[in-house]
Amino acid sequence: MDRRSFLKNSTIGAGAAAGAALAAPAYAQGNRTLTMVTTWGRGLAGVHDSAQRVADSITAMTDGALTVDLKAAGELVGAFEVFDAVTSGQADMYHGADYYFVGSHPGYAFFTAVPFGMTAQELANWYYHGDGAALHDELGQIFGLKSFLGGNTGAQSGGWFRNEINGPEDFQGLKFRMPGLGGQALGKMGASVQNLPGSEVYQALASGAIDGTEWIGPWADEKAGFQEITKIYYTAGFHEPGAGLSVATNRDVFEELSPAHQKIIEIASAECHQWNLAQFLANNGSALERLQSGGVTVREFPDSVWDAMGTAATATLDENMGDELFARIRESAMASMRQSSNWIQKSESAYRAQRDRVMG
Amino acid sequence: MDRRSFLKNSTIGAGAAAGAALAAPAYAQGNRTLTMVTTWGRGLAGVHDSAQRVADSITAMTDGALTVDLKAAGELVGAFEVFDAVTSGQADMYHGADYYFVGSHPGYAFFTAVPFGMTAQELANWYYHGDGAALHDELGQIFGLKSFLGGNTGAQSGGWFRNEINGPEDFQGLKFRMPGLGGQALGKMGASVQNLPGSEVYQALASGAIDGTEWIGPWADEKAGFQEITKIYYTAGFHEPGAGLSVATNRDVFEELSPAHQKIIEIASAECHQWNLAQFLANNGSALERLQSGGVTVREFPDSVWDAMGTAATATLDENMGDELFARIRESAMASMRQSSNWIQKSESAYRAQRDRVMG
Repeated sequence: MDRRSFLKNSTIGAGAAAGAALAAPAYAQGNRTLTMVTTWGRGLAGVHDSAQRVADSITAMTDGALTVDLKAAGELVGAFEVFDAVTSGQADMYHGADYYFVGSHPGYAFFTAVPFGMTAQELANWYYHGDGAALHDELGQIFGLKSFLGGNTGAQSGGWFRNEINGPEDFQGLKFRMPGLGGQALGKMGASVQNLPGSEVYQALASGAIDGTEWIGPWADEKAGFQEITKIYYTAGFHEPGAGLSVATNRDVFEELSPAHQKIIEIASAECHQWNLAQFLANNGSALERLQSGGVTVREFPDSVWDAMGTAATATLDENMGDELFARIRESAMASMRQSSNWIQKSESAYRAQRDRVMG
Repeated sequence: MDRRSFLKNSTIGAGAAAGAALAAPAYAQGNRTLTMVTTWGRGLAGVHDSAQRVADSITAMTDGALTVDLKAAGELVGAFEVFDAVTSGQADMYHGADYYFVGSHPGYAFFTAVPFGMTAQELANWYYHGDGAALHDELGQIFGLKSFLGGNTGAQSGGWFRNEINGPEDFQGLKFRMPGLGGQALGKMGASVQNLPGSEVYQALASGAIDGTEWIGPWADEKAGFQEITKIYYTAGFHEPGAGLSVATNRDVFEELSPAHQKIIEIASAECHQWNLAQFLANNGSALERLQSGGVTVREFPDSVWDAMGTAATATLDENMGDELFARIRESAMASMRQSSNWIQKSESAYRAQRDRVMG
């Protein structure tokens, strides 16, 4: 093929023909659409937003050379089918909460949240400057994924209940929605735990299929409308103190990309971890005020419930210690958390206590 | 010009001619080097690192189409000259702490830190999901800059002293290094405040030109070597509870860039805000342990000192309220901080208190 006919028949030729009028770069490999499936119903506040932001950032930073086409849960595959869709190559990437996939490997729990585990900042410290990212990648190699953190909900609320929780016995027989190892721990406390994707929770609560649910926090929960059904809301919870969301790309697809495009996916995901966390934290305060104005009663679990949650959480984590990789992830995460937490207590927490005392 | 000769004579043509063997994109506009000056001496732990990360991310994500050439303080201009260098066009961009430039506009203080102001997370909430970024841009328009947050040190330590601080009177006549509005507040408490760039602090302390200094936190301070000179270290401080660092590009230069490259600068900067914060927080705990093992005494300021700091901080902020933009920034930041802080207290802080109680 001579040069002219090569150019004529290639995407490059088409781009080059447009010549100097083109502000956009012309790519040797042509443009490519990456299909992103998610664990989120379209429009779910915060979580769909973070998937959309990652998609849009990648598209914008590559000037469309990689165009990410976001398919919300149910549009291509169901919420809990995204893992298999990406490992099999049916879709190119997913945005979702990795603890939905503890059935594939229990170690995935740590990249969303484990009960009595890390806050969002502690997770970031471990992930970006400890062993977190490397361990996430080690899991990804098992399943043919290249994974990055790509969102965070912050500390999640205890959730919505029809009746007040006065002691651990009140969880006996309670039909409650909670995924991941937190849900398994709640099961040990006698609850009948269900794992439902976000877009199915409202209907389950409204129909009485479940008695109560946790979802995220005041802002996302208000948008989901749970206050229309139940009126008792517990703020701090034990189960997801800083839930990370992940962007996972099929590893073969990722490895075909140029180093620049790989870096763009990495940085777009990491940026969204911060952006999304700030989004939830910026919106939760005013949402809680609206919920209270609308008649929702806000409560905190009594110490006896926290104690029972602690026992159940430890037992749940201990059950998985026969898996060598799970054990390594847990030990790495907990060692990092202890040191992070200790410093944060001495510096930022001490400062905040003084700010509250001095400035009111 | 016919198509063949156009292609032959253009960058596009050169790229296209290399054909499918080229993994890298070919740019219509050719490559460009952006000179980044910084307020940091080369190698200063954490702060130089964050400038380097932003530079490297931009270079990598553009595949070198924008190559950021980092000039540390003193290599092209001095630490405190970077603002003028970029507004004048002598350099293309700077990485630095914007509170060094309160002489240009006092509103810049809020994009690093103000005494009794926001933590790093509260800053992110306001910046990315409140009015913070827009107000930063409004300042930038005055001076011909396009600014983004591009780093954060976390809550800074009270600093290094030769003698213990037992009451506010111990600041009388103390020659102390502290920049920004925090330094102005310390001046109201009777200290003789000096503003020195990081790379000059060690020498000033060693020579006795200053009696004490704050710099950042245990990790960066240990790397700077202040423990070789002074042995009393105060952890929580009032002056910089979450110091943001900025990436500012000459506005004319920024506007010449393609939308994709503009987005790359924006996202690279934001990603580094999180990366850098996590870097400091991941390293401070073990550094503090080393400092203590090496004979450093760790202290907290007594309440009487915090009270005096509060009075001085409020007076300092109040003095600038005649400037309309300063007043608008302060009111916006403080309103956001109050709401953020209130929610964080109810959720993450409540969780951490229970985690400490239950898990020890």
